[in-house]
This record gives sequence, structure tokens and C-alpha cells, in this order.
Amino acid sequence: MKILVINAGSSSIKYQLFDLAPFESVRCSGYVERIGEASGQLLHRVHQKGGDHEHEQECPVPDHAAGMALILDALTDREHGVIHDVAEITGVGHRVVHCGEAYSDAVLIDDNVLKAIRDHVPLAPLHNPPNLTGIEVARELFSETPQVAVFDTAFHQTIPPHAYLYALPFDYYTTHRVRRYGFHGTSHKFIAAEAAAFLDKPVPDTCLISIHLGNGCSMAAIDAGRCIDTTMGMTPLEGLVMGTRCGDIDPAVHEYLVGQTGQDIAQITEVMNRQSGLKGLCGTNDMRDVKARAAAGDEQANRALDVYCYRIKKYIGAYSAILPDLDAIVFTAGVGQNVPLVRARICAGMERIGIVLDDALNEQEATQTREIHAAYSPVKVLVIPTNEELQIARETCEVLQA
Amino acid sequence: MKILVINAGSSSIKYQLFDLAPFESVRCSGYVERIGEASGQLLHRVHQKGGDHEHEQECPVPDHAAGMALILDALTDREHGVIHDVAEITGVGHRVVHCGEAYSDAVLIDDNVLKAIRDHVPLAPLHNPPNLTGIEVARELFSETPQVAVFDTAFHQTIPPHAYLYALPFDYYTTHRVRRYGFHGTSHKFIAAEAAAFLDKPVPDTCLISIHLGNGCSMAAIDAGRCIDTTMGMTPLEGLVMGTRCGDIDPAVHEYLVGQTGQDIAQITEVMNRQSGLKGLCGTNDMRDVKARAAAGDEQANRALDVYCYRIKKYIGAYSAILPDLDAIVFTAGVGQNVPLVRARICAGMERIGIVLDDALNEQEATQTREIHAAYSPVKVLVIPTNEELQIARETCEVLQA
Repeated sequence: MKILVINAGSSSIKYQLFDLAPFESVRCSGYVERIGEASGQLLHRVHQKGGDHEHEQECPVPDHAAGMALILDALTDREHGVIHDVAEITGVGHRVVHCGEAYSDAVLIDDNVLKAIRDHVPLAPLHNPPNLTGIEVARELFSETPQVAVFDTAFHQTIPPHAYLYALPFDYYTTHRVRRYGFHGTSHKFIAAEAAAFLDKPVPDTCLISIHLGNGCSMAAIDAGRCIDTTMGMTPLEGLVMGTRCGDIDPAVHEYLVGQTGQDIAQITEVMNRQSGLKGLCGTNDMRDVKARAAAGDEQANRALDVYCYRIKKYIGAYSAILPDLDAIVFTAGVGQNVPLVRARICAGMERIGIVLDDALNEQEATQTREIHAAYSPVKVLVIPTNEELQIARETCEVLQA
Repeated sequence: MKILVINAGSSSIKYQLFDLAPFESVRCSGYVERIGEASGQLLHRVHQKGGDHEHEQECPVPDHAAGMALILDALTDREHGVIHDVAEITGVGHRVVHCGEAYSDAVLIDDNVLKAIRDHVPLAPLHNPPNLTGIEVARELFSETPQVAVFDTAFHQTIPPHAYLYALPFDYYTTHRVRRYGFHGTSHKFIAAEAAAFLDKPVPDTCLISIHLGNGCSMAAIDAGRCIDTTMGMTPLEGLVMGTRCGDIDPAVHEYLVGQTGQDIAQITEVMNRQSGLKGLCGTNDMRDVKARAAAGDEQANRALDVYCYRIKKYIGAYSAILPDLDAIVFTAGVGQNVPLVRARICAGMERIGIVLDDALNEQEATQTREIHAAYSPVKVLVIPTNEELQIARETCEVLQA
């Protein structure tokens, strides 16, 4: 069963073609970039036994429809294609960022779903519109193929009201839909399944803290397979310190900064989204640079790392207090999977709440799922590579089989 | 040794006269209200063995100088006064809300201190100006008496950079002084001393989580007597859900609400300070009403309580993860001391992190320091009545004796 996974951004479309049976494998992956600019680019990578084969193409890509047509050509190209005909694709799975309270699971796309995604544009003005465009052009090009939407917010819909409500006037929730939604749900759900499999427990018996540290960062408290809290909120700005986002902050800072700097609220929010986080604290959001500078004794980089890790430490404690049980904490995504220093700083001094790292295991480089805790650690510490595209393919397949 | 404690607000002055030796006792207390309005009021209460004696007086109080003069008259009045002469007062202790990084302890007031308080007006525009006025008029009326400033922020000055820095552009800190300062410091410091005494341990050996739940709410993580983190931030708006303040929220909510409601950032911040918290969630910030309504099955009040308690639960977990040890969590202030239901909801299900309440002890009404945990609870749970005025008197005395 072949599933095409589409992630459409404002000027790019990323894709992967999966074969899910008999074994899960990626047939090809790639992206179209610089859509709408003078010159665009397709990068198409065919995954095969003897090694990957890459095909690159520079050409103007005026819009998403043209971009999607390029992808279809690449998929079926005689030389570097992987299928003969579109009909071989069983389903198309689309990443959609925000669908609020409308869906708590992946869903077969119809006009109602499109309307729901459109209804949530005010809550995700940067992401939902290109996601919508991606769906619309894919529906035209792959007109005979069922399309499925997989939402970043869906996994978090099990969060109870006491955790998703802000203490604002209640009609801000009922009228303006201001509440915690959470994001990275596809990744956290993938981790929940992988961790349970690794621990050899059924998902509904597994309690976890999933720690997704990429350029965006979030955590999820997972009680018996269900998410009960997450660090991102109404938008992806809340919670952890990220590459360029500030995460948690005093809500009175905005008005103060408007007064102090003369910027307006849109500019301040933009600073909080794009000039803050690690970049704000030490000038770069590239964790490799931050790490290298900290290792070389750079005080600013070291402090940025400290702020970053300390915030995660506090949330591990918070989620530890609300979970009835805790099998493991799981590190995932770029930084979570690949930066032992970050994992070490986060776990340092948490013996009291049952977390003890094995320094040697933590330092070992590896790409597969592994444990890095001391043998006697009451709570396990795992590193699991996330794979949101595979999760989207899996959920697309489930929807089609239902 | 007699110490007069002054807490000057925008339209009120509260006072207490303490005798600190040979035993700590309150000689009288009271307040002047509605300063600057058509009619003001003095309430003066003399504390004596046979029962308190009250004196009330209605009269215009045009300004703080007139209010302070009324207090001085009441203190030395032939009928209801408690001293013959101002000279009997050894020192005057002033509550001052914000002095940023300038002072980490109480300090004898001179022109430099006044300048420092004035420098911090932008960070506490509602509180520092009346605090300043209170000091200025007290210095004129009690011109021979040394005056001491006791800052709400001082106890939190031991918080390390990784806990006080927000992940904003670093120059917002260096240029605009945006960082976590914390408030209620006088209360948390008092609790640290009382808890250590009750536990029969030296303060420098005691690790605590102090939970101050009044109309304003905050928590402090106290490591070996020193504060290492607190929930309030640059202002008292951050952290817990309070009577009318929202506490933690997604930093992108402001811009969204400006767009949705047409209010400007000052109005949104005002709503977050005055129309949010318990009041926002269920219409009232009076915990007695919230409790009664929840008991009567009111879903809104019940949910407001849940949101309120859940936030505290998460911070107990967070602080539990950052403290090297934890002797006790301590509930204090109006709600913390007097609402068993709130304490019960907060502590429910926290056995995993070592907190087990004794339901019967929790339900017992009492006014003194007491334990309410189960005998086998690894972490003790205490209720300690706070006394910020006494703490100000103690610190004033210490400064004068130093």
C-alpha cells in the first residue's frame, strides 16, 4: 500500500512516498522550494538498496499547483520515478497544523473538513492557508485518490479542561477559542507508539513524558497512551525555549516592551517568535554552534543552554506530578536525538524524582531507539528518532482501512 | 524595641506597631483609607490583654501626609494611643514592592535608596510611587527615627540567571531590565524561617516549597533557605491563577486578542490583571463563593477551582525537580491557610512525588502552624500563617542593630 505524504508550507512542498506493506519503507522523498520566486527548485531523492539516487531541477515554480505537478512528474518519471501511474498511490496524507477542537483524529478530506481547516485560519494564519492550498491542488492532481488530513493538534484533544483552559475571561474561550491546543501531536503520538513497543507494553498501559526538541520544542505528558498536557498552547509560542521562540514569559512583558521600545504588539510578538529563544539569548539558534561555543567557554552560549535545559527540567517535574505513573521520559527530534550535552544537563540532579542517566550510554552516538538511563533508574530515559511523515502515512492508511 | 510598619498604597496607608522585645507582640494596627476622596477613614485597633479596642474616625484625608498625621495622632492619643511620644519608636519599616537587582536585603533608607526606588517605578508603576510617598511623609513626621525599606523582591535576588532570564533578546534584559524578579518575598522569607523553626532544623538546612495563596498567589522554591525560583515574574501577573490575574498564558494570545476584540495592548493587559483568574473563569474572585458554588454543583466554579489547583500542582512538581531535597511544602496566606478543599485538590494524586495528605488533619480548623500530611508521607505538608508585617518589623530591627 503506497501512501504519499504532503507537507505544504507557504513557499515549499515537502513529500515522501511510503510503502507500508508488507514492510514500512520510504520509496522516495523530496521537496519543492522557493514557490512564487523567480527561480524554484525540486529535489527528488529515490531510496533504493544500492544507495539513494538524487534528482535536482531548477525552474520557476509560479504556484503550489505547479509545484505539485513537478512532484507528480518526478514520482512517475521514466528515469527517476518510483511508480508508473498515479493510480498506484492508495492515499495522500496531508499534514495540517491546526484544527482546534474539530477533530481528535486523522480524517478523510471532504468539503466539511476543508471548511473546518479554513475556520481555523485565524488561529494558525501562517500554516493553515498553505496547508489548505496543498490539499486543494493535490485533490485536483490526484483526483481519484482519497486524501486524508492529519492534524498537529489532534493528539492533544484528550487534554482535559483544567489543563487546556487559560484563566482568562471565560468568553475568550467560548467566543474567541482561546485555549491550549498543543502542536507536534503527530510526533508525540508516534513516540507514544514507539516507546510502548520498545518497552514491550501496550500503548494504553504506558505513561510517558515525550520531549520533542527540534527548532520548535514541545513536551507532552502521556497517561496510558493519551495526552493529558503539553507545553505549546494556543500557538506554538508557549512553553519551552526554542530556536527562535521565547516560550513562557510574564504576560505583562508585552505592554511594558511596547512602552519601552516603541514597537507595536505585532512587532513584539514577531520578536518573541523569530528573534528570541536561543537566538535571542546568544545570537544563534543553531544548537551545534551553541554547543561548540559553550564548550569553548563562551558564557553567553553556556547561559542560553542553561535557560533552555532548565525550562525542560521544570516541565519534567510538572508532568511527573500530574502523571499517575511514569515509565519513561523520551528525547526526540534533532536536538533531543543528537545532543548528549543537552540531555545530560536536563537530567542532572533529578535523582530525587527517579531519573538517573548513564553517562556513557548518553554519549554513545546511534540512530536507533535506545535507553540511556542507569540500570537502577526508576524512570527509564529513552532516545527515539521521531518520524512524523511515517506517522502521517500510518494514520492515512488507518483512515482508509476504517 | 518598638517598630512601626507602614504599607502605603495609592489611596491607603496600613500600619502596625510591634514590640519586638522581650516578646514579639502587636501593640496596635490599623489603616487610613480613601485618601484623596471626599471622605476618608481611619481605623485604629489597640491590641490588649482584655480584648482589642477599636477607634474609628471619618474625615477628609486630602493626601498621604494628612493620612500619616492621623496615624501619628492615633498612636499617641491620650485615650486610644499606645505610646506617649514618637521617640519611643525605634524604627519605621516600609514595605516597598520593587527594587529590582538593587537590593537583596532590607536597607536603611537614605537618598540613594529613594533614588533606587524611583528608578524602579517603570517596573512597578502602580506600587512604587505610593510606597515612595509613604516613605517621604514618614521621614518628615518621624524625622528623628531611622527608616528601613523592606522589598518584596529582595528574597528572590538569590534566584540564579538560568531561572530569572526569559528567552528574549538579551538586550531586553540589559537595557530594559526584563527578567523574573518575583514578589511576596517578605512572606516567603517569613515562611522559610517559621517552617525551619517548626521542623527544628536550621534555615540553611531546610528545603521547601512555599505556596502563598491570597488574592495574589505565588510559590517559591527554597533551597537551603535561599530562594532559587518563584512563579511571579517581571511583574506579579505571571505564574499561578489568582483572584483576578491570569498567570501563565501563551505569549501569542495578546496579539490575537487585540485583533479579535479591538482592544489595545493596555486594555488586554488590564483584563489579564483585573478580569481574569478565578473571576474570569467563574465570575467571582472570592474563594468562599467559589467554594460554596462548587460544593453546590456549579460546574463553572468547580472548573475554576480545578484550573487554579492544577496550576499549583504543576509548579510543585517543577520545583520538586529542581530542589536537591524537599523537607516540606507549606501552604500560607488567606486561601492557603483556610481552605482545606484547595489543599486537598492540590495534593491529590501526588503520592508518586512523595506528598500524601492526612484528610482529617487537613480538614481541622486551626490558626497556628501545623502539619497536615499522613504520618508516612516522605514530604511533609505544613500550614503556616504568614505575617508579612512581623517580617518587616524583624528585618527593620535587624538593619537597625547591624
